Amino acid sequence: MSLLGIDLGGSKLALAIFTEDGSLLLRESIPLGKRIGSEVGKLVNDRIRILLETSKRNGTEIDSIGISVPGINNTSTGKIWAPNIQGWNNYPLLAEVMEVTGNIPVIIDSDRACYILGEVWSGNARGCKDAVFLAVGTGIGAGILVNGEILRGSNDIAGAIGWMALNRPFEDKYTECGCFEYHASGEGIAKVTREYLKKSRDYSGYLSDRDIENIKASDLFAAYENGDSLATEVIDQCVEFWGMAVANIVSLLNPEKIIFGGGVFGPANKLIPAIRKEALKWAQPIGIKQVTFDVSGLAGDAGVFGAGYLAFRNLQKSDNSK
Amino acid sequence: MSLLGIDLGGSKLALAIFTEDGSLLLRESIPLGKRIGSEVGKLVNDRIRILLETSKRNGTEIDSIGISVPGINNTSTGKIWAPNIQGWNNYPLLAEVMEVTGNIPVIIDSDRACYILGEVWSGNARGCKDAVFLAVGTGIGAGILVNGEILRGSNDIAGAIGWMALNRPFEDKYTECGCFEYHASGEGIAKVTREYLKKSRDYSGYLSDRDIENIKASDLFAAYENGDSLATEVIDQCVEFWGMAVANIVSLLNPEKIIFGGGVFGPANKLIPAIRKEALKWAQPIGIKQVTFDVSGLAGDAGVFGAGYLAFRNLQKSDNSK
Repeated sequence: MSLLGIDLGGSKLALAIFTEDGSLLLRESIPLGKRIGSEVGKLVNDRIRILLETSKRNGTEIDSIGISVPGINNTSTGKIWAPNIQGWNNYPLLAEVMEVTGNIPVIIDSDRACYILGEVWSGNARGCKDAVFLAVGTGIGAGILVNGEILRGSNDIAGAIGWMALNRPFEDKYTECGCFEYHASGEGIAKVTREYLKKSRDYSGYLSDRDIENIKASDLFAAYENGDSLATEVIDQCVEFWGMAVANIVSLLNPEKIIFGGGVFGPANKLIPAIRKEALKWAQPIGIKQVTFDVSGLAGDAGVFGAGYLAFRNLQKSDNSK
Repeated sequence: MSLLGIDLGGSKLALAIFTEDGSLLLRESIPLGKRIGSEVGKLVNDRIRILLETSKRNGTEIDSIGISVPGINNTSTGKIWAPNIQGWNNYPLLAEVMEVTGNIPVIIDSDRACYILGEVWSGNARGCKDAVFLAVGTGIGAGILVNGEILRGSNDIAGAIGWMALNRPFEDKYTECGCFEYHASGEGIAKVTREYLKKSRDYSGYLSDRDIENIKASDLFAAYENGDSLATEVIDQCVEFWGMAVANIVSLLNPEKIIFGGGVFGPANKLIPAIRKEALKWAQPIGIKQVTFDVSGLAGDAGVFGAGYLAFRNLQKSDNSK
């Protein structure tokens, strides 16, 4: 059996062919470049067409296709809302893709759903039925697996934990992206660092000669590695927010595993013991002792592996219903 | 078809017989009195035996039994942890009950799971597949329905939202019951009121002639109805916590409906519009606009209805697997 997994991101498209046990047979990656709107859809379709033809010639025909999208897939319409791809407000990806896929089943899901599915198939959540992928990159989202199934909610937007309320009272600055994301996403870390630098006029540390407006989360982590006091203060606060959020996930969902991923984990991986210590204070005491924390086992490939597993599960489901 | 629903609470036992469409045929309620440990188990078994015999004589034999327990049911062992029943640390309820039930299927679940099941069957969540029952009584817990199934987590303790982290930094007083429960449960409201009264030495309002140590949530609500300023302050803070917690449920789970129940809703029902207003500030903006808030349609009977529905669903499942 051959499975085609497709991970459409905000800046690149990755495609991979897998065997049914999650072994990678082929992988390609194409930058989106300046493509917007239907040009992105055309790129996806072109690559699918080429891979289907090649596979057919090689005698390894694709049996099922899964697609991860950087946003929300409306399961009832197959249309996509992807804020980082211009013109993808309600984009008919499923209908378009089906023009080239013929009888091969196609299924689409959000990137956060695919991240946890990828980890379950081939990463650090293998064997788990109740697990959460906490993706902390530019923004924050969670892929949630409950009893072996993706938790999607009544309108496919479950896992929007960047909006988690953790710091009362409400401030207007939370309106655009949510409280948790404001304080502890990659973009949030940069924003908070800028706020701290503007307030600390007598600061003369690692970041003092930098252009404040262009500070990035990576600069903050570099300063933290250098023992910079302001960076330590910002990171300590992030650890508090991450710990509280993880505690809330544990108390509400009682998962067996939480995977930390996204661009920030990465450099924040070494903070996981401190995050656990913070979460231990807040969370339901039995649940927090039972849950395991881990980093992503697939790094940047969780999405494409997840899309492959999505394809596999979709095939299994249609086989079972026959 | 006749279904026996049993709601074992911390202070009373309720039993009811239902038809398969959720109509109530008979209902009885017995105070636990001073019973502890196996005396409670014996009471449950005695009542089951009597109801089974009566039903048999009436020609309406019981087809299935569901039991709601005030704590955690370990689904793999059938043993119960119920902190409000002395001696029920790991109580073998399922094994005991099966001594009198013969071939009739028996299933046990937590009270919070039964609350939302009851509302789905016969209350204000009818037709819902993704809904949450927020139970605010002495403590706080949530019954969570995801895609028509109870979310129980890896060890049956999902929904422990009394532990939700909402107010940083952590304070030692949260250790025993969790931050959200400390501030906004029935017991929490009384505790916070006592704290406020002790701090406000020049207070001379509705509660000033009361014995501070015996203040209850109901006293606070009475004072609030009277426009008391201290009570208004406490309630406003509760609304903030309830709003934040509801926002987090919405952002994480994307439910179509949240039902407010337990002893506090009740008197706090009229605060639901204010809670919605607070939640609107914090939550994922699409999800919070889509979700409906409602009060319990079954009040104190949500548990026994839920146990009845549990019995019905269990029968359906075993029929389907044949």
